[in-house]
Amino acid sequence: MPFLKNAWYAAAWSHEVESEPFRRVLLNEPVVMFRKRDGEAVAFTNICPHRFAPLHLGVIVNDTIECPYHGLRYNTEGVCVFNPDGDGRVPPGARLKNYPLLERYGTLWIWMGEGAADASKLPDFEFLTDTTHYRPLTGLIEVNADYRFLLDNLLDIAHIAKLHHDTLASEAITRSKTEVVEKGDAIWVNRWCPNGPLRPDLEMMWSRDRGSSEGIFDQWVRAGWHAPSMVTNDLAVTLAGQPIDAGLNTMAAHFLTPETESRTHYFWALCRNFRLDDEEFDRLMSAGSEHVFVEQDERMLRAIQEQVGGKEFWSMRPMLLHADQGPIRVRKTLERMITAESAARLAPEIPTTA
Amino acid sequence: MPFLKNAWYAAAWSHEVESEPFRRVLLNEPVVMFRKRDGEAVAFTNICPHRFAPLHLGVIVNDTIECPYHGLRYNTEGVCVFNPDGDGRVPPGARLKNYPLLERYGTLWIWMGEGAADASKLPDFEFLTDTTHYRPLTGLIEVNADYRFLLDNLLDIAHIAKLHHDTLASEAITRSKTEVVEKGDAIWVNRWCPNGPLRPDLEMMWSRDRGSSEGIFDQWVRAGWHAPSMVTNDLAVTLAGQPIDAGLNTMAAHFLTPETESRTHYFWALCRNFRLDDEEFDRLMSAGSEHVFVEQDERMLRAIQEQVGGKEFWSMRPMLLHADQGPIRVRKTLERMITAESAARLAPEIPTTA
Amino acid sequence: MPFLKNAWYAAAWSHEVESEPFRRVLLNEPVVMFRKRDGEAVAFTNICPHRFAPLHLGVIVNDTIECPYHGLRYNTEGVCVFNPDGDGRVPPGARLKNYPLLERYGTLWIWMGEGAADASKLPDFEFLTDTTHYRPLTGLIEVNADYRFLLDNLLDIAHIAKLHHDTLASEAITRSKTEVVEKGDAIWVNRWCPNGPLRPDLEMMWSRDRGSSEGIFDQWVRAGWHAPSMVTNDLAVTLAGQPIDAGLNTMAAHFLTPETESRTHYFWALCRNFRLDDEEFDRLMSAGSEHVFVEQDERMLRAIQEQVGGKEFWSMRPMLLHADQGPIRVRKTLERMITAESAARLAPEIPTTA
Repeated sequence: MPFLKNAWYAAAWSHEVESEPFRRVLLNEPVVMFRKRDGEAVAFTNICPHRFAPLHLGVIVNDTIECPYHGLRYNTEGVCVFNPDGDGRVPPGARLKNYPLLERYGTLWIWMGEGAADASKLPDFEFLTDTTHYRPLTGLIEVNADYRFLLDNLLDIAHIAKLHHDTLASEAITRSKTEVVEKGDAIWVNRWCPNGPLRPDLEMMWSRDRGSSEGIFDQWVRAGWHAPSMVTNDLAVTLAGQPIDAGLNTMAAHFLTPETESRTHYFWALCRNFRLDDEEFDRLMSAGSEHVFVEQDERMLRAIQEQVGGKEFWSMRPMLLHADQGPIRVRKTLERMITAESAARLAPEIPTTA
Repeated sequence: MPFLKNAWYAAAWSHEVESEPFRRVLLNEPVVMFRKRDGEAVAFTNICPHRFAPLHLGVIVNDTIECPYHGLRYNTEGVCVFNPDGDGRVPPGARLKNYPLLERYGTLWIWMGEGAADASKLPDFEFLTDTTHYRPLTGLIEVNADYRFLLDNLLDIAHIAKLHHDTLASEAITRSKTEVVEKGDAIWVNRWCPNGPLRPDLEMMWSRDRGSSEGIFDQWVRAGWHAPSMVTNDLAVTLAGQPIDAGLNTMAAHFLTPETESRTHYFWALCRNFRLDDEEFDRLMSAGSEHVFVEQDERMLRAIQEQVGGKEFWSMRPMLLHADQGPIRVRKTLERMITAESAARLAPEIPTTA
Repeated sequence: MPFLKNAWYAAAWSHEVESEPFRRVLLNEPVVMFRKRDGEAVAFTNICPHRFAPLHLGVIVNDTIECPYHGLRYNTEGVCVFNPDGDGRVPPGARLKNYPLLERYGTLWIWMGEGAADASKLPDFEFLTDTTHYRPLTGLIEVNADYRFLLDNLLDIAHIAKLHHDTLASEAITRSKTEVVEKGDAIWVNRWCPNGPLRPDLEMMWSRDRGSSEGIFDQWVRAGWHAPSMVTNDLAVTLAGQPIDAGLNTMAAHFLTPETESRTHYFWALCRNFRLDDEEFDRLMSAGSEHVFVEQDERMLRAIQEQVGGKEFWSMRPMLLHADQGPIRVRKTLERMITAESAARLAPEIPTTA
């Protein structure tokens, strides 16, 4: 199945791209990015259209990118503006494919489709930069699996009980019931988990913040999908019966950008609304995330990818459980969007006569 | 060409499979095996039908195998009997594909076809466990070659003269004539090699057992194919003119189980009818086998596989010699069996009206 | 696109092939070469037609090559002349495919097509062995790229300015104009670059030979293609206005032999007409070549190959500049030759009736 092209994908964390060429393969296409002198980031195909040299091996000269093979230079609109050889002529219309970039929420977003890049299609991830209320931690993991296995995983609360038994699991989550809610373009998978003890990671957080982790707690676990492949988590915990504001809250963002059909750039961010200045707590939380995301999830997803290989998901006849309704609705919605996009490419819109 | 599916293949030596999950890829299918508390071994697909997680990363709980991803448990019939999440329901008919296993001759035999597993189809390899008359040595080699190149090799006595010139070769074998005999379902390639000196490996054996290796000897070299890919060797040597019982005899079994089209699990066993308690001789014989099977045969077959790649055997127009008649008859017989099995799958039996 | 088969390709430098079997993959075919007792080199497929064993693992016995698997021996015409097994018979017509070899200019040339090997089709590279006038340096580089990217590179003088900015580049070359000349079967790309300073590598050469590199110079840069994939360079430099003979000249040969579609054996030779006995200068020149050919060109071509993969050149819609006319004419000519050869194979010549 092709990728959805007319959509925003996280291409890089803002801090990754500076004034030098930065290469990344996105949706099977080699991309090169850099920042102009005014700080704005731009993105191009990494393949020089002349003789296909990789531009990331070249240099930036006065906001132009110079090919390392023949020294052709392209301006930030992608127009070839300099040929050092002979009389210096370039064929009319010679240009480098460029991609719209949008910088928001500490992230560079790329639009790889042919349709007009529509900034309003980017969901709201404002909590990522709302440092008044949240302390963010971010990272990037290269996952050897299809991005849809990661989507399945992130929207699947049931797997916590077994795969993350030592970190995120709790009896209260396990015995809770999944509710799936569509809200605008997003699909949310929610669990309300009242009256239970704290799970291991929350126990660590609560005791550090409140001095003790005794008591019975109410928890909310929510995961929301935003097309094509972004997931937000809203995790709140408070003493049983207390208002949600009296407890702790972490907001997480997971941006999944396919590198290829079987590899995914996984940008993650965890934002907490407590201990906003506690740097040692940052380190504890980062180590915990590493354990959960890399040692547990990535290892599992890689093993699944290895076994499934290129086989189509539905051809494997998955056995669906109650807790799968969220991830499955997301898969089906995404498939419909991709099918519609492919159909539109094949059959251009016919103008209706008035 | 597909694999013959309705047949027994060696899946593991008995001692390899214990109470923990044990993984092996067989005929391109990932398989997991373990022993129940009563010691019986069972085999399943290694892919959980829910979300395709590899079950060998899970654990065994009271004779059920538990998926490491969501904690689903399957009993030894493959039925899903436990879901830790939510209300614990599982869809009716939720099950894990299981494979018939037969434990015999110190070996676990698997049946991967859709047809009924027929224990009577397993050939007799009783000498493997007949410790009154034989001392067995066993091993497992992973060979980077199509299992049919191994079949060719094991049924081909002519290659001994060159490839094994320092171990198994003798003038008497080289100048002997191949006789091909069908006996039941087996195809035997036999050579009667009278009146010659001992070959290097037999000289070592004979002198160790009899104190001297002087004399002229009669040898029998026999290799028998048993569908789909088992070979037995019967090697006997005695002083020229003496009855066969007065000499030495080794019985060998070679069980070839395809991992993929180009890799083979090669289970080998060597059973001798002399020096039944000589452990130092075990070590000498093991070292010799390693030299012959790995340094000589495996190296050659890997090199052939690399050159031939995926090309079909007959399309390469092999040049056939007199000594090839045995291996070629085996190839043709196996091809007929595979073609018949494929045809039966496509055209289910039509019941004849009385 | 297939390779041109009815043509000479460099198979090895003469000194590489001795009396032992020497293996090399050429045009996707495994080849084994060795020298007979009289010094003549012969070439065969490396695959024994009996059971496909690689012959380079065997030995040479009295000008026959012996298969390491069964000991079959083939004479220098490829005829099977010995079978050690049984009655020693071999099927009539049993033979090993052999390839015409031609030894000339210190190089072994192979003809891999079905057509008659025509020695007159080998271009003249006499300067390679003309030690009266030239001092040769030779080497072999395994390049991870399609041989046609190497052809493009060698016939493309424009890339010097950027990729070789620290070695071969000069303002005079950059501002010069490309002239494309067909001369016999060869296509030459020439640049006449008068009145400039010396480029870095020439400065090193000139100052070593003449004691000083001051002055204004005239340069000729010429690259000639010879089908299917040989390139010669003729580089001459002299003080501005002086006759060409008063200056320095290097003649280079580049023989490109495809190993596969994406790997190339690159045989190079550099012959200078000055300092014919200066061994230290050999070392300086070799180091310089290594830098240019491996660190600069090979790195670039490998990166291009990685990005282009198996995509067809024209399907990538290259942007063509004035300086590309030479390489493009070569690509088109080669494509026409390959198409004609394929057509001739499909439609054998119809004899015209008188």
